[in-house]
Amino acid sequence: MKALVYHGPGKRAWEDKPRPTLQDANDAIVRITTTTICGTDLHILKGDLPLVTDGRILGHEGIGVIEQIGTGVTKFHVGDKVIISCITACLKCDFCRKQMYSHCRHGGWILGYTIDGTQAEYARVPQADGSLYNLPAGSDEEAMVMLTDILPTGFECGVLNAHVKPGDTVAIVGAGPVGLAVLLTSQFYSPGAVFMIDLDDKRLAVAKTFGATNLINSADGHAADHVMKLTGGAGVDVAIEAVGIPATFAICQAIIAAGGRIANVGVHGKPVELHMEKLWDRNISLTTRLVDTVTIPMLLKIVQSGKLQPSKLVTHRFAISDIMKAYDTFGNAAKEDALKVVLTTGGPRS
Amino acid sequence: MKALVYHGPGKRAWEDKPRPTLQDANDAIVRITTTTICGTDLHILKGDLPLVTDGRILGHEGIGVIEQIGTGVTKFHVGDKVIISCITACLKCDFCRKQMYSHCRHGGWILGYTIDGTQAEYARVPQADGSLYNLPAGSDEEAMVMLTDILPTGFECGVLNAHVKPGDTVAIVGAGPVGLAVLLTSQFYSPGAVFMIDLDDKRLAVAKTFGATNLINSADGHAADHVMKLTGGAGVDVAIEAVGIPATFAICQAIIAAGGRIANVGVHGKPVELHMEKLWDRNISLTTRLVDTVTIPMLLKIVQSGKLQPSKLVTHRFAISDIMKAYDTFGNAAKEDALKVVLTTGGPRS
Amino acid sequence: MKALVYHGPGKRAWEDKPRPTLQDANDAIVRITTTTICGTDLHILKGDLPLVTDGRILGHEGIGVIEQIGTGVTKFHVGDKVIISCITACLKCDFCRKQMYSHCRHGGWILGYTIDGTQAEYARVPQADGSLYNLPAGSDEEAMVMLTDILPTGFECGVLNAHVKPGDTVAIVGAGPVGLAVLLTSQFYSPGAVFMIDLDDKRLAVAKTFGATNLINSADGHAADHVMKLTGGAGVDVAIEAVGIPATFAICQAIIAAGGRIANVGVHGKPVELHMEKLWDRNISLTTRLVDTVTIPMLLKIVQSGKLQPSKLVTHRFAISDIMKAYDTFGNAAKEDALKVVLTTGGPRS
Amino acid sequence: MKALVYHGPGKRAWEDKPRPTLQDANDAIVRITTTTICGTDLHILKGDLPLVTDGRILGHEGIGVIEQIGTGVTKFHVGDKVIISCITACLKCDFCRKQMYSHCRHGGWILGYTIDGTQAEYARVPQADGSLYNLPAGSDEEAMVMLTDILPTGFECGVLNAHVKPGDTVAIVGAGPVGLAVLLTSQFYSPGAVFMIDLDDKRLAVAKTFGATNLINSADGHAADHVMKLTGGAGVDVAIEAVGIPATFAICQAIIAAGGRIANVGVHGKPVELHMEKLWDRNISLTTRLVDTVTIPMLLKIVQSGKLQPSKLVTHRFAISDIMKAYDTFGNAAKEDALKVVLTTGGPRS
Repeated sequence: MKALVYHGPGKRAWEDKPRPTLQDANDAIVRITTTTICGTDLHILKGDLPLVTDGRILGHEGIGVIEQIGTGVTKFHVGDKVIISCITACLKCDFCRKQMYSHCRHGGWILGYTIDGTQAEYARVPQADGSLYNLPAGSDEEAMVMLTDILPTGFECGVLNAHVKPGDTVAIVGAGPVGLAVLLTSQFYSPGAVFMIDLDDKRLAVAKTFGATNLINSADGHAADHVMKLTGGAGVDVAIEAVGIPATFAICQAIIAAGGRIANVGVHGKPVELHMEKLWDRNISLTTRLVDTVTIPMLLKIVQSGKLQPSKLVTHRFAISDIMKAYDTFGNAAKEDALKVVLTTGGPRS
Repeated sequence: MKALVYHGPGKRAWEDKPRPTLQDANDAIVRITTTTICGTDLHILKGDLPLVTDGRILGHEGIGVIEQIGTGVTKFHVGDKVIISCITACLKCDFCRKQMYSHCRHGGWILGYTIDGTQAEYARVPQADGSLYNLPAGSDEEAMVMLTDILPTGFECGVLNAHVKPGDTVAIVGAGPVGLAVLLTSQFYSPGAVFMIDLDDKRLAVAKTFGATNLINSADGHAADHVMKLTGGAGVDVAIEAVGIPATFAICQAIIAAGGRIANVGVHGKPVELHMEKLWDRNISLTTRLVDTVTIPMLLKIVQSGKLQPSKLVTHRFAISDIMKAYDTFGNAAKEDALKVVLTTGGPRS
Repeated sequence: MKALVYHGPGKRAWEDKPRPTLQDANDAIVRITTTTICGTDLHILKGDLPLVTDGRILGHEGIGVIEQIGTGVTKFHVGDKVIISCITACLKCDFCRKQMYSHCRHGGWILGYTIDGTQAEYARVPQADGSLYNLPAGSDEEAMVMLTDILPTGFECGVLNAHVKPGDTVAIVGAGPVGLAVLLTSQFYSPGAVFMIDLDDKRLAVAKTFGATNLINSADGHAADHVMKLTGGAGVDVAIEAVGIPATFAICQAIIAAGGRIANVGVHGKPVELHMEKLWDRNISLTTRLVDTVTIPMLLKIVQSGKLQPSKLVTHRFAISDIMKAYDTFGNAAKEDALKVVLTTGGPRS
Repeated sequence: MKALVYHGPGKRAWEDKPRPTLQDANDAIVRITTTTICGTDLHILKGDLPLVTDGRILGHEGIGVIEQIGTGVTKFHVGDKVIISCITACLKCDFCRKQMYSHCRHGGWILGYTIDGTQAEYARVPQADGSLYNLPAGSDEEAMVMLTDILPTGFECGVLNAHVKPGDTVAIVGAGPVGLAVLLTSQFYSPGAVFMIDLDDKRLAVAKTFGATNLINSADGHAADHVMKLTGGAGVDVAIEAVGIPATFAICQAIIAAGGRIANVGVHGKPVELHMEKLWDRNISLTTRLVDTVTIPMLLKIVQSGKLQPSKLVTHRFAISDIMKAYDTFGNAAKEDALKVVLTTGGPRS
């Protein structure tokens, strides 16, 4: 079969690889029909994640059809159309029992990371009963592939951890795809105002169409001042970090109201300075989280109710055989005005 | 009357001051019968809190008898024996309505800070209806004065914010009076193990008698290693910082389990380094809080049930007229084996 | 002044009464500009609430301008435009401290019940600091008067108590004004489906325009069967009772899913049969509540954000001097297609 | 092998049955070393549970050694000493994913009910990975067998559902084994007072030794009056029903404070009258639950910490071969002063 293979920093190829086979009783082999590229895949290609070795098939998001299942798989059958969570969950370990699938002792994030992934014609999904979800009949696959990672990430790490409440004033720092996923899912709770903070006016304009009430371009270095002015000096109830660098984390600290909640979504590569000398008496909370994807069933219901349109995030569509080009586009997201690119075996949707 | 007056860094005196008078309809004038000295008072004396000006009467904890009330006070009467919260609460502002009395727009921590305090024969308590609590008949005053600040601080900022649950493994960093207050109140929730971490073996020994299950002297610089060994590499469910310096904050970060909760109780004077590069995917929470004293009614009930003996914290007793000596003792806590010192108008209890 | 006065079962008059005067330092005298009639007022007129005595001015909802304040009132000034909560809260008692204003020891529901109310040109509001809210400048009074009772009732007793979550399947039994208030406010949490159950097709049609996804006319006595069919036999996550009789309470029990939550909003006059033989092992919760109006500040923010249009509930508008006619209309709500009637001193809005 | 077999109402025998064999890949065959008898077993023998058919081996609690496992079992090995939960959990279905194992679509309560149970020399445990827990080395089996049903029942259905908080006033109606399990586990949260209500003074005396602060014999029909007097007319914060009949349920309703929580633990056979005409405005919650046994890991930690001594509940010990006699004793619990009887293959402990 064909697959997108990592060959060390900066090197990737769409090339032949052996079709995956069952290795464990709980495995499923899925024929991929839709997949996408994650910002994390770009990090891998930069060489930032040393656990990814030469020869690894990338991709941890996907939808497909079950071709084969191990004897231990009880919830799914050959022929089922399934959503593949980016997080593999055994359901049995102590972390899974606490709904912390991200830290599953036999899974967590492994697809396209420590084992081969979903940017291929076929993928092996371990712990299939815990890692797959039935695709509702008649679903739009490109919408539903957003439920495999980006939407639960924004929702769980951002919105749920920050306990967004009706009427809250929310600031989201970072209007990339993940920040926009936070924006979309924050609206499940009817915040009173959502401030979107980014360097890129085009992304901010997108945020406006997604429901942001105020746009703040942080290029002038005064984002925090703008927020404080907008809130009459009080700061925001909720600040969500969706970038992963010290500067954006600093904005969150500077704008959080007494009693507020900072939720970190961004992937950080270095320590940040935490101003405990200012925050110790401010009654705030700060949370971190790797997505557990425990909310996929809830998100499915919301999509089906029409209250969430995940395909809003999709700007580019490719045939999976054009994935090398899709990576080019996604890798130049700013220039290409790209949010999420979707790859399908049936070729681009018209 | 006599009062303990601050005269700039390092300078204090027990001297004559005019008796306080009603300044607002919601004031009460309380004749102090019991008071104590807080670690914060020592900070003030070091000059760390520039809002405290020369001439200020110190003290934000106390018990006494109401001598006079303003016309707006409806819950209390002259002659009532009352507990004075360290936090003044108007009950009417937005923060008070959210039970965040610490940030009351007409109060918060002001006693012995921006207005005269309780280390005196008489004190004026503003917002009396929100800031006083009836002392149950027959109460032990020296036990109950611990409910004015230190016990709610340990309980609210530490135990409640960290959501200590039955069976949890809890680490408390700092075995000073506040850390010990955390220890005492953590036991309301039946943790499975409580590790106490401090540099001072004598304080650790006290912690043992207060219910700590494991003692760790951090003098060797390897406290975190010890904790990780004790937990089989998993870390603790709850880490509570009760010192307020970067080194102890660092221990909390190093020992927190995936899914764990760090609660900060210590007063910090400078920024700390937060290892987001390690914590971003660990599903942890970190909280800060200035005590709201909203749990005083709950603590009162627990003391009355006999499940909490606050007087365990009291090591030294003085007549209030000996407060200069009491400060000396408390200021040399390590050498004097002092935890809390209690001052009474009736003189030292035998 | 003129006021709507109760004179025993079935008897009411718009007649002269003395203008109210300050009786307590915490009172405010409010010149009423907008008021409304509540279903409870009709109950009073039927003689169902024996605590209401001959001569009582009715009404517990209103907006107006402060004419006079007692010396204890600190948050408001003469001339302030205010929203009058139907619940009077001293903010100081143990219940108020727990945000249970409905059970305030010096208030609760008293306006137009045990003391004179708001269907008058002037009203005395006790505990003004806890019972009034500033009307935001430029607000639509007829929308905002919905925040004095009906919207917090639907929201607090129904939506909050039932913990409506995104994607939930919700059934609301009763499409009268209160049931519709539940419907409007349930949408703050993005339920997946909202079933509206009522005997009256016209009210159901209104519910449709307010966001109900499924309408069930219970006239055939098979409402529960319809719900079970719609949910594939699973039942609903949330059932909200908004009528107050055994039959509608029975529907809630019959349709609740395992793990579901029943929230009672209706005012009940007699016991109901609770099928514990069926429910004991179903992991359900059932809640009751008298509105606390603690969410008025949150609701104000949501109205200001444009996410809630309370005036949807208003079908009829009268000058307050026509309140006798307004009662006739509201008392024949079904025939008149009336939801809420609004009375203003300025006369009907064009 | 030998097993305790049900032969229709009133009939049981200790007789030969074939040793169970693996029927599914997720099964385990456990050699029973310790088991016990539940009040539910007596209900079965009365014929109250028609799903139990002639020939069924009873028992849903036990500890033993794994003799054989199916190919799908991954967490356990032959030779492991295990605790058998009374609830079978597949971990994969929607209810298990929500921690509602009691409603597992492939399990729930089935042992000794719809399939053969644990009062035998060997038992087949389906869904072994979700239904078994490793017995910590060196554990006291008779203590640990209390974790298979009675302690999680008291804890989950009673204490957790009622949100017992430090300082709360708690009433437990019913001092049988389940009520006493509520009493023991309520103390994890340091209630201020625990009232125990029962008809039997001997059981009340046991409750006293288990930590009840007040004993109320309800034989005079005035239990509610006594509680109201003890609470100064306020009622209790928490009322836990641990009997399962209308009269005890009525007590709970009569004594609950405004804002209180009623948690039902008892198994009910008929409807109860719910006084909504009194409760509708009292801001109470009422919960039901079949035990999920999700807290077994937490309870294990607490037992290991020494904060819970489950063997307090054990009054009688038998060899499993004497189980007919053990049933006689347990069936005459009042006369025999029996709480829990423990059966071991090694014979009675000295």
